[in-house]
Order: sequence, then structure tokens, then C-alpha cells
Amino acid sequence: MNGHRGENMMELAQILFPLHRSMTGLGNRQSLEALSGYGLDLQTVEVPSGEQVFDWRVPDEWSIRDAFIESADGVRRVDYRDSNLHVVNGSIGVDTEMPWEELRTHLHTCESRPDAIPYKTSYFHREWGFCLTQRQYESMLSRKDRLFRVCIDASYEKGSLTYGELILPGKCKEEILFWTHLCHPSLANDNLSGIAVAAELARTLASQHLQYTYRFVFAPATLGALCWLSNNRNIADRIYAGLVLTLLGNLEELHYKQSPSGEALVDRLMATLLGDKQSVSRYEPFGYDERQFGTLGFRLPIGRLTRGLPEVYAYYHSSDDNLAAMNAEQLDAALEFLLCFCNALENNKKYLATQQHGEPHLGSYGLRKSPGLLSNDDQQRVLFWMMHLCDGSMSLLDIAERTGYSITEIHEVAAMMQTVGLLSIARNDRSRSNSYMAKAIC
Amino acid sequence: MNGHRGENMMELAQILFPLHRSMTGLGNRQSLEALSGYGLDLQTVEVPSGEQVFDWRVPDEWSIRDAFIESADGVRRVDYRDSNLHVVNGSIGVDTEMPWEELRTHLHTCESRPDAIPYKTSYFHREWGFCLTQRQYESMLSRKDRLFRVCIDASYEKGSLTYGELILPGKCKEEILFWTHLCHPSLANDNLSGIAVAAELARTLASQHLQYTYRFVFAPATLGALCWLSNNRNIADRIYAGLVLTLLGNLEELHYKQSPSGEALVDRLMATLLGDKQSVSRYEPFGYDERQFGTLGFRLPIGRLTRGLPEVYAYYHSSDDNLAAMNAEQLDAALEFLLCFCNALENNKKYLATQQHGEPHLGSYGLRKSPGLLSNDDQQRVLFWMMHLCDGSMSLLDIAERTGYSITEIHEVAAMMQTVGLLSIARNDRSRSNSYMAKAIC
Amino acid sequence: MNGHRGENMMELAQILFPLHRSMTGLGNRQSLEALSGYGLDLQTVEVPSGEQVFDWRVPDEWSIRDAFIESADGVRRVDYRDSNLHVVNGSIGVDTEMPWEELRTHLHTCESRPDAIPYKTSYFHREWGFCLTQRQYESMLSRKDRLFRVCIDASYEKGSLTYGELILPGKCKEEILFWTHLCHPSLANDNLSGIAVAAELARTLASQHLQYTYRFVFAPATLGALCWLSNNRNIADRIYAGLVLTLLGNLEELHYKQSPSGEALVDRLMATLLGDKQSVSRYEPFGYDERQFGTLGFRLPIGRLTRGLPEVYAYYHSSDDNLAAMNAEQLDAALEFLLCFCNALENNKKYLATQQHGEPHLGSYGLRKSPGLLSNDDQQRVLFWMMHLCDGSMSLLDIAERTGYSITEIHEVAAMMQTVGLLSIARNDRSRSNSYMAKAIC
Repeated sequence: MNGHRGENMMELAQILFPLHRSMTGLGNRQSLEALSGYGLDLQTVEVPSGEQVFDWRVPDEWSIRDAFIESADGVRRVDYRDSNLHVVNGSIGVDTEMPWEELRTHLHTCESRPDAIPYKTSYFHREWGFCLTQRQYESMLSRKDRLFRVCIDASYEKGSLTYGELILPGKCKEEILFWTHLCHPSLANDNLSGIAVAAELARTLASQHLQYTYRFVFAPATLGALCWLSNNRNIADRIYAGLVLTLLGNLEELHYKQSPSGEALVDRLMATLLGDKQSVSRYEPFGYDERQFGTLGFRLPIGRLTRGLPEVYAYYHSSDDNLAAMNAEQLDAALEFLLCFCNALENNKKYLATQQHGEPHLGSYGLRKSPGLLSNDDQQRVLFWMMHLCDGSMSLLDIAERTGYSITEIHEVAAMMQTVGLLSIARNDRSRSNSYMAKAIC
Repeated sequence: MNGHRGENMMELAQILFPLHRSMTGLGNRQSLEALSGYGLDLQTVEVPSGEQVFDWRVPDEWSIRDAFIESADGVRRVDYRDSNLHVVNGSIGVDTEMPWEELRTHLHTCESRPDAIPYKTSYFHREWGFCLTQRQYESMLSRKDRLFRVCIDASYEKGSLTYGELILPGKCKEEILFWTHLCHPSLANDNLSGIAVAAELARTLASQHLQYTYRFVFAPATLGALCWLSNNRNIADRIYAGLVLTLLGNLEELHYKQSPSGEALVDRLMATLLGDKQSVSRYEPFGYDERQFGTLGFRLPIGRLTRGLPEVYAYYHSSDDNLAAMNAEQLDAALEFLLCFCNALENNKKYLATQQHGEPHLGSYGLRKSPGLLSNDDQQRVLFWMMHLCDGSMSLLDIAERTGYSITEIHEVAAMMQTVGLLSIARNDRSRSNSYMAKAIC
Repeated sequence: MNGHRGENMMELAQILFPLHRSMTGLGNRQSLEALSGYGLDLQTVEVPSGEQVFDWRVPDEWSIRDAFIESADGVRRVDYRDSNLHVVNGSIGVDTEMPWEELRTHLHTCESRPDAIPYKTSYFHREWGFCLTQRQYESMLSRKDRLFRVCIDASYEKGSLTYGELILPGKCKEEILFWTHLCHPSLANDNLSGIAVAAELARTLASQHLQYTYRFVFAPATLGALCWLSNNRNIADRIYAGLVLTLLGNLEELHYKQSPSGEALVDRLMATLLGDKQSVSRYEPFGYDERQFGTLGFRLPIGRLTRGLPEVYAYYHSSDDNLAAMNAEQLDAALEFLLCFCNALENNKKYLATQQHGEPHLGSYGLRKSPGLLSNDDQQRVLFWMMHLCDGSMSLLDIAERTGYSITEIHEVAAMMQTVGLLSIARNDRSRSNSYMAKAIC
């Protein structure tokens, strides 16, 4: 645990929390500015309103300035200034008086948790609404015999959809994609946790020599993903592995959802790193933006990392998913895990044993111990596995899967063996196979 | 449950029950006439005595008129007129007196159930015998010091082996075969149940527009199957799926025995329809006529549907397997299951998603709900699975296997999607793969 | 159980027990002479000191004549004449006096079992040492204030490494290899048991007509295996199956360790013969000489048979592994198992059913019983399986795996069927596939 890093991520989340993110608009641009302020060399991309993106069209840009419901006694019963969740995200403007019976059809509460404000959106149907606690609902109910003033000072105008992108170039052009959605307003785990972990991961990798090119994208969900795919079809083809990041600050264990094929490098690496198969679930065409990356026309090798299953996250899409629902330690542990993932990727080489006929005479190489039945030293056992398996075709991941040792352990021994001349890098190390080449149906 | 259908099948079984079926002879022809009377447009095929059929030769035709054992006091202790099971099926004629010690070597009883008459056959060894209850046996034992008169008025003469066949032509020439054995005399589940269900299934399908050609055969077991195979080698090659039907009126759950490959379309469909793997067993070269269809030279994709495992059917081959051992509800449920099977076959198309890059914008298609994490509506989930999987190569069965939804549910959604333009029929829909092409060894 | 055979093997072990085997030297030649005396037509191979063998060099030959530790009172506290385990195998000569503090760094005891002398070797580091019981250690400890006389009358001189080899020629040149290590001195299960069982197996097979050529090698571990591989590269290529034999006289159940591929003929045969999967473990590059045969350059289809897992053998490499730790019955049962293995190999033919279209009419072949549902006779069931599976491509092992019947049972029925003309030997019976051809990575 690196306490400093965890605190940094929590501070970033605190800055981002009050900004009113949506599918489009000012809040998203403010959020990307905050990420630049965190030290990320972000490029901002704007996709104009009206642009056709596959089966969709980018809508006009949404702006909101204020919103409230006032009872006849002049008291603001629901006030946008208390929480931006109070307005259905994407609501059209309204300013009128109406009776309770009409108003109530525009109100949303959370039945199971009376003190929570639910989070609702309406991006493509031109309608308006308020989200509120059961308590607020009841306070208005007692005044239902008089008119309510309803005001949403919001508007749609030509503008654009905004996303931010950061590239850390590596030696080769194959890319590793980290993807987070930027459109949720004052919700913490979903998805300030993903944004904060991605930001800190990018900052950490930026100072390293990298084999692969790493790309971080912060974009609104669904349409943001489609815009990025539309702008980057050629890049999509060279994505070697990718992860959608969200729900990383809560107390659950890490959970991995596979890419469509279930057999991509990212799937195999995650299974090896997580160890326990109960932490892995198969791809389904529901969930976060992995839905878009997995469609027939793309089938990208992109999985999803969360803590626990989103489908059972108790605070999902409600004001209970606030900064108190996540903590620095969990964010940092998720970050640490992702650094292991990147490290395993970077080190996943193929080696060739230089001595293939019989065991090597270890004494000649200055390596301690001789082979034998009861050799319990793990490093020596790894060494013998390497001599047994390194025919130039097996990557360290293949070897980890076969032996149960971690890629880190194996890489350490491989480096030692390379030094004394027992291993060399395989010539065909670059000819990797991955699912995106075959676009196999899962 | 369609009470009418169940009763019809029971009535047909009642008509067929007393007819004395055998490998050859009058009883079989009478039975086929009864099936014609039930509304089936049956064609009767006669294979002459002496004809070589693979490794076998069609024997002379058997006729029987009467049979009894009379004790010295003139009482008929065993009488053919009580039950045609009393005579070993295929017995040669005999008319003589003999002592108990000689007679007893020709008597068969059922040790475990003293009141039951066992069912025995002797088609290729020229011998005679009687089957009787323990009680009858004992009544004769008390008179064993005097001679018994033994009479079987039976004969073998040149004639033929008879089977009936019904064809329901469909749009394509690939055939679905339903096969039942016709040779058992007064036994109900084995096999009036199979005959009745096949007859009603044929009558039901006859009024439908069919994609496949359906063929129903009613033939004596073993040699009847070999005769049909010998007469239809070219047709055997285009059997797309088939089922041997028997034991369908008792109270056990449906059980499927796989075709030799275990991976034919019929095997996969049955596994999907039955759901529970305990209801499926692997092919073995023992049992009913699936034994012949599965031999090396044929390896047809034909499985077997029964209720429970025949090997443990308590009334197997005895007079206890009478009409009281089966009921209309079970026959009707079996029929309903077979109609689902045919329906799944007919609908097992391949589709192509028209929108493959990213999710479709459902709103534009007039389909309710938008995609999202917590979409619980089954139809919408099926819709997204279809968008995810319909690349033109996957049949609805493939999709059912991958998703766990039934072919019926999937077909409903597919039809809806086709209407709004989200799916089209795949061009290569007719290029099906099946095990009969490869004749793979199981 | 053949009591005679078991006793013979125990007697051979008794003769071999006191001989001082090592990596090189007189004890090994004496042991090979004892095997010749047992009736084996052994050929002795000498590999000269200094010869390069893959990554290794054959060391000078070791001789030892005497060794002891004497306390100042003139008492021999540790005496080579009591047990050849007392000297670290391969020790250089020494003859001097030294204080306890120096001596103790050359002493080895067995912490967990105070009465046992451990077995240690030092073949490539020029050093010396004694192995002794805790009791002996303590008796010297009480005299630690005076000098000890230490004497090992041993030397290294140009000579050779010795191994013995026996070939039993069969009809075809594919070879079955039985391998045992000869280098352990007074240890019983490890490996007089392997030597004795191999010797008796060779003696038994020598009197039989053999399909395959059988090769038995008795060689020092590791370097002996490498010498043999170096001398026999062309022969290694035609090894069809092989087993390393050791630990066969103790009370544990038989255990099989797979060859590298895990799918070689030897692996499949062993799994079939042992039945219980808990008795089989995957290949690992640790253990006995299977380590050398499994290296990348060879990947030979050679597994290992032991009783129990060597890693948990309580007496491993200690004086507790003496003749009392094994018995004649267990040796004989292991031998019997190996004879079954050879028998299964010899009989593992491929047959072609002569009647492939429909079942044969068994009556015409003089075979009892007719086919039917409830046929419980195992031989008849095997017969029908053979008719079902014998397409010329399936060996008896394939059929055993598919049906669960043993190769012995299947071979008996196959012979009977061949006699009556229902089966013939497949023409391509010699075209066997084995893992050594593909050298697949495990």
C-alpha cells in the first residue's frame, strides 16, 4: 500500500464530485480540465452535434443552470443546488405551476432506500423530471392541494460531445486501452473511482519505459464509446488488450468480466492474476462500455474490472454512492493490481532454452543447488520448468498457466537464466496471437 | 394438455392391443390397417421370404390360429384365446401328448412376478413354447403324473415381412425420421405407446407447412429396421435427425439416448429441450432399433426417446405391460414434447444482425427500453444476445446453447427483430452441418 | 501371486544390498555381474572419464576402500564397514586429525529420525563428509574437547561410467524401454526394488514371442541417463513407450507419473490399467530419470511407476530404506501389473468389422444369444461394442477407453470374433500415432 497514492486519488475524486457531468456539456469539460490539473497530458476531442455515429446521431449539447420545486408556501422542496442528482440528467427546460397530480408523474424516488436520491437520465426522449428522497416526496404530499412551482433552467443547443484521451507511446504500436466513463455526475464508485484509478495509473506509467503503447480514454458512456470507435477504427484493430474500469473504491473483491472470446490475452492474464475462478464471469452483452467494444463489428479483446458485480452493488445509481462509499486503500489496491497487470503484459516474453538435450549442469553456471527429487526451492523449480518449456513458442503467461507460478516469479528467474546463458529471447517473440485477429464468436 | 388428443391415442392403443403382431404375419397387416383407419396415409411395404437383407435372410411368414395345454381331466390350463402372449412368438406347430418332465422344458414363467405372463420370442430357432403365470404352472404341477395334451396350431409358409411408411413432404429434401417397432403383440408401453404417439404426431404435422420432410415408419424390430435400411440406402443419407419412439405412456420422466456421435443436431436439440443432463445417456449398441441405425455402415443421427430407462422398466416384456400401465396424459405430454422438437427444428435458422458496429439505437426501431446495466427484461436481453451473436454462422440452437434461452423464446424475438429490420435471414442458412456427413466414430 | 517370483526378487535384492554403488566404480560393475548371475544377458557399456555428454563431462572414476571417524580414545565412532551410507557418496580422500568445530561441518544427520543414517552425495564438488545417526553424533559430542582422527581412503582416477543394457528383440523395431537407476548403494526400495522387478520382468519376457523390442537399462541416475541418450539418439526416436521403475517394494498403491505430453500411449494405457485417476499425476521436470527423457530435445513417451509418491516416502534416502522396508508380495504385484501392461501393449491391435451394415445374425456364426435390450452377458456386450467401433482406426485401447472394458476382456472377444469371421486385422494396424512424433509441448 502506498498511502500517498490512495490519498491523491481520493482528493481528485473530491474535486470531480460536484461537477455536473452528463452525456454532453460543461461539466464534462470541467472534469477533463481537472484531470489535466492532476498532471495528465490529455487531448480533448469534440464530436459536433448532429454527427452520425454508426446507428446513432450526436444530440445537441445540454446546459443546466438551476432547478427546483417550490411549494405554495414559497419553500424550495427540491433544490438543484443541494445535489445535481435532483434533476433527471438531460431534462428539457420547464418553468410553470402545476397541480400535484401532474407533478407526481415527473418525480422519481428510490423505494428500497427512502433517504437516497436515485440517478436517472433521459438523453433521447425530450422530457423532464426530478429525483428526490422519499422524505422530500412526503413533505410535498402534505401540500398536494395547492399548486407547485416547477423550474428547470436547462437548454439544448448545437455544440458537441466531449471526451479526453491520453497516449503513452511504447516501443511497439500494439495498444493497451484503459477506458472509463465520464458521464455520471455526483456518483463516486460509479465512476469517480474508475477515473481516479485510471488517472493515477497513467501518471505512474508515464515515467516508465514501455513496451506497449498505453491509451487512456475518459468519455461519456455508450455514445462516447461509439464516437471513439468511429474516430479510431484503425487503432481499434491494434488493441492488444483493454479494460473498462469502474466501481473500484468499494469494499468488495476485484471481479473480472471477460472479453467476448473469453480466450484473449487479457482474459488469460486476468484469470492468472486473480487466481480464483469465482472472480471471473463470462462476457454478456449488458453492462458498461464493454458492450460497445464487444459488438459483432469490433469484438475487441477488452474486459472489465470492478469490485464485486455491478448488478448487486447496493448503492448503484443513487446518492448513496457518494465519496463515503469508497476509500483510499481500496483505490490503491486496485491500482496496484493494474500495475501488476501492466507489468505482466510488458514481461510476457517468449524464451528459448539454450540447453535442450538433458538437464544443464547447473554447477557450471554458478547457480546453486543440483537437480533432484526433493528440490523444494521455488526458484530452482521455476528454473527447471523454464528449461522444460522454453521452446520459443511459449510465453511467460503460457508458463504461468502450466506451472501455477506467477509471471513475476517466472520473469525474475528468466532474467537470471538469461544472464548466465541458459535462456535467450525467442526470435519470433513478436508474433503474438490474440482474439482480435480472428474475431471469433464467443 | 389437450385431453382430446390423449384420449384418441388411448383409443388407438385399445384397438391395436389384441392384434397378434410378430416379426411377420397377419397381425402386423391388421395393425397397419388400423393406423390407416386412424387417418394416416400409410404405404405398406412387403419384403418376400427368403430375401437376403445384409447379414440376414427374411424368414417364412408365421401364422397362428390356436394354442393350448390341456391336462388329462380335459381342462385347458393355458389357452391362447386368453392372451396371445401365452405362445412363444414364432413357435412352430405341435399337436401331441407328453409327460410333465418333457413339457416343463417348454414352459416360461416370470419368477419375480408370479401373476405375470412373460413375453418370449423364437424367430430363428425352430422350436415351440408356452408362457404362463406361476399360478398356471402350479396348477399343472399338481397333475404332473398324467400326460398333457399340447397343441399349437401354427405354421411357416412363404410370404413376406411387412412394414408401413408415411411421408409428409416439406420444402427441402432433408428428412426427419420417426421410427417405432410394430412387432410386439399385446404389450402397451412397449410399444403401442410409441405407435400411438407417432400416429398422432403424423396426423398433427400433416396439417402444417413443413420445412423438412417427415417420415414415419412402423416396422418389426431388428429385421424390419434392416429391411427398411436395405430398401432406402439413398434416403438414409439425407436423414437430418431421427428418433426411435417407445415406452411413452408410463409415469417416468422423458429420457433421451443419444445417437452414436452424441453431437448430432438431434442430440444437441434434445439436450437443450430436456435441460437436465440426467435425462440424457450416451449411445450404446444395445436397446431398440437405434442399434441398427447406429452400425458402422450407417451411423445415422438417430436417437431414442422413452420414459425412463427401458433397462429398469418393471413391466418390461410381460403381461403387466398392459393398457392400465399407461395413460392419456403421459402420451399427450410426450406428443407435446415432440411437437416442440419439430418446431425447434423448423425454426432453427441462422440470422445476420444488420447493425454490427456498436449497439443499435433501439428508440429508432420503436422497441421499448434502452440498453443498460440492469436490464432485466428477458426479451430485451435476448435481443441484445441476438445482436451480439447473429453473424450469419450461428443457428438459433447455437444461440440457445450459448445463452440458456429456449429456441422458442429466441425465435419470437428474432421474428420481431426481423420485422423492424434489425435481423435478416443469413444467406448460407441452408448449409447445415450434421454428424451424418462425417460419420464420425463416437 | 507367484510366491516363487517374489522370493527370487527378494534374494536378488539381498545380494545387491551391500554392494557400494555410486555414479561410477566397482560397486556398479559388481551389481551388473549379479544381474548376469540372475540370468540376464546383459551388455555392459563403459563411458570414459572426461567424455563430454551434452552439457556435462563424465568425471573420474571413484574408488573407496575404508572410512572412519575415531575419537581420541581410539574408538571408531563412525565406521564405513558398518554401512556404506556412512560416507558421503563421492567423497574425496582425507586422513587427518581435527577439532570438533571443524569436523562437525562435515557431518550429516537426519533430524526427523534420530536412528537413521541419511544418504548424501557429492559428485561434482570435491569435498568429503560423513553421514551418521543422531546417537553417533551425540557420542562424539561428549568428546568434543579433544581431536578426532578422520580417514576416508578414497580416490578419483581416470576410468569410466558403467551401465548395463539388455535387449529382447521383437517382430518390429519400435521399442519399449524399462529404465532403473543403479547408483544408490545400500537402499532397498530406492532402488533395489526397481532393479529386481526389471530383472524378473526381463527374465519372464525373454521366454515369450514378442511383437515389440524390449530394452532394459540399469544405469546411474542423471549422468547415466544422459550417457545412454547420447549413445542412443537414433534408438530414442523409436521408443514407443517407456517406464522408469523405482520404489516398488513398499506397501503403498501403484502410482503413475505421466510422460511430458500426458497423452502418449503409455499414459493412456496406464490410466486405463490403474483405473483410478488419483493414481496418476502430471509430468513435472523433477524426480528420477524421467527428467532427462522429458527434456525439450527428447520429449520421449516415458512415464514413471512407483508405489506412492516418492516426495512423501518416509524412508527416502536414509538407512531406514533397507530390505525390511519392502516385501516379496508387493514386488510380485508390481511385476504382475507390468506383465499386464506389456500384454496390453502386445495386444493393442486395430480390427475391422466384416459386417458393418446392421448387426450380424449371430446365430449363423455359432455364437450364443441373440441381440436385445437386456443382454447382460459381458462378452456379448463387448462383441456388440466391437461391431460398433471396429472401423479399422480404433485400437483395443481406444475401445477400452470408450467402453470401460479391459483390454484383456476385449482381446479375448476379438480373438473369438476373428475365428468366426466377424473381425479381421486392420491393414493399417502398424501406422500408430504417438507423442514422440510430434514432440508436443505438455
